[in-house]
Amino acid sequence: MSFNSRLSERIHRTQSNLCVGLDIAPENFPNGNADLSDLKDHCKKVIEATSGIAAAYKPNLAFFERWGSEGIRWLEETIDQIPDGTIVIGDGKRGDIGNTANQYAKSMFDHFGFDAVTVNPFMGRDAVKPFLSNPEKGAFILCRTSNASASDLQSGDVIERTIQLALDMNENDNAGLVVGATAPDELKDIRKKAQGLPFLIPGVGAQGGDLESSLRNGSAGGSALINVSRGISFAGDLSEQAIHDAADEYVNKMRNIIHV
Amino acid sequence: MSFNSRLSERIHRTQSNLCVGLDIAPENFPNGNADLSDLKDHCKKVIEATSGIAAAYKPNLAFFERWGSEGIRWLEETIDQIPDGTIVIGDGKRGDIGNTANQYAKSMFDHFGFDAVTVNPFMGRDAVKPFLSNPEKGAFILCRTSNASASDLQSGDVIERTIQLALDMNENDNAGLVVGATAPDELKDIRKKAQGLPFLIPGVGAQGGDLESSLRNGSAGGSALINVSRGISFAGDLSEQAIHDAADEYVNKMRNIIHV
Repeated sequence: MSFNSRLSERIHRTQSNLCVGLDIAPENFPNGNADLSDLKDHCKKVIEATSGIAAAYKPNLAFFERWGSEGIRWLEETIDQIPDGTIVIGDGKRGDIGNTANQYAKSMFDHFGFDAVTVNPFMGRDAVKPFLSNPEKGAFILCRTSNASASDLQSGDVIERTIQLALDMNENDNAGLVVGATAPDELKDIRKKAQGLPFLIPGVGAQGGDLESSLRNGSAGGSALINVSRGISFAGDLSEQAIHDAADEYVNKMRNIIHV
Repeated sequence: MSFNSRLSERIHRTQSNLCVGLDIAPENFPNGNADLSDLKDHCKKVIEATSGIAAAYKPNLAFFERWGSEGIRWLEETIDQIPDGTIVIGDGKRGDIGNTANQYAKSMFDHFGFDAVTVNPFMGRDAVKPFLSNPEKGAFILCRTSNASASDLQSGDVIERTIQLALDMNENDNAGLVVGATAPDELKDIRKKAQGLPFLIPGVGAQGGDLESSLRNGSAGGSALINVSRGISFAGDLSEQAIHDAADEYVNKMRNIIHV
């Protein structure tokens, strides 16, 4: 089954558009001095608290790489803790010349076993192609990101050229786009042009993007995953119950916005 | 001392513009079935064979990440093997929202101890800023890469906007640009507009870029590092002597083109 079909099926089966972002840093703990062992425990807790509700998880590689080889071992353990069948997205935003992109694809898919990745299209098709050669594995291509300075380069015809690149490269039904919730008008416009490509939508929660408009417009004609990181993994008193409740509340809100 | 001053001094002191790229993959060995231990031995050999000649080394993170936590341990060992005083550039082309870019900067500078990194500007200033906050650490911002599909997005006003972004962000004298040798006219044009920003120039050797024009134009008014990866690390019969001779030949050619 192609990645995009599997994603659509997963969203329908779980009745959930929620992607839980795993961005676990000591700075987010109340005392600010959590060590690697504390981070591992907390990350496992987040997975256990949300595993029945999340359509997908998205480990953010930066938060693991910060600790070097020990952090990458933690990433390997984290992927093993996620229940089978869940979609696991490696958020590394890699992008390099073909020969190097091949090595990154081997890393993300063959070594870590991610189901999909985020990729940066700045170096063009060469940089994206190795991530799309296996129909069962997907790639969400950065199109309009959620951060304040996104428009430094993602403006003018750059967004349209990125959409076209993704459409051209979707021969295996496994390309998608990253479109931030913080730019609702552009998201609506990109959905029209991107036909049925799935969207991975960051920016809801800590970054201030609007859930209702981004989910409604993002899912109009294609799959949409709404990523929430800190708003779930550091909810309330950081207990398993508080994390579960935050995730549950997000999913219920989404179910009231659209019925998948 | 600022990174850009240190780079300029290093080039003058070694009389070398050579950056040795460390992209060590099993596919490059004659029998194609080298294991991780063979790769480690070969990588160490490349460093030992070139340590008197290289102004800089550039480990390409993809080639280490491919092996997961074991590969990142190899990267840590590799950085330890490079003689003190040499400039070590972490080639990861990271680029993400500010909060995540902060984690990547902690990884590259605080954990691994790289002197400089390559960064991808597609997400704008937020994505670049954390890599430029310490004047002693540098960031080479992708501007015009060496690959065939670079012009998919790096065209029109995107290159000029990237140059301007780098110039604006060079307050600490530690920003540079990645400009491929495979686009000689654009390289010449970018040098004029980028004033004294240092260039990291890939694409000479296996990718077919011209050494003479890229070094002459790239160094006209600013530092230029010419990166060679496979052309040195997999030279001849892969012996220490063959690797040394290949590096020596490159450096002598460069010394005949410009006198630093």
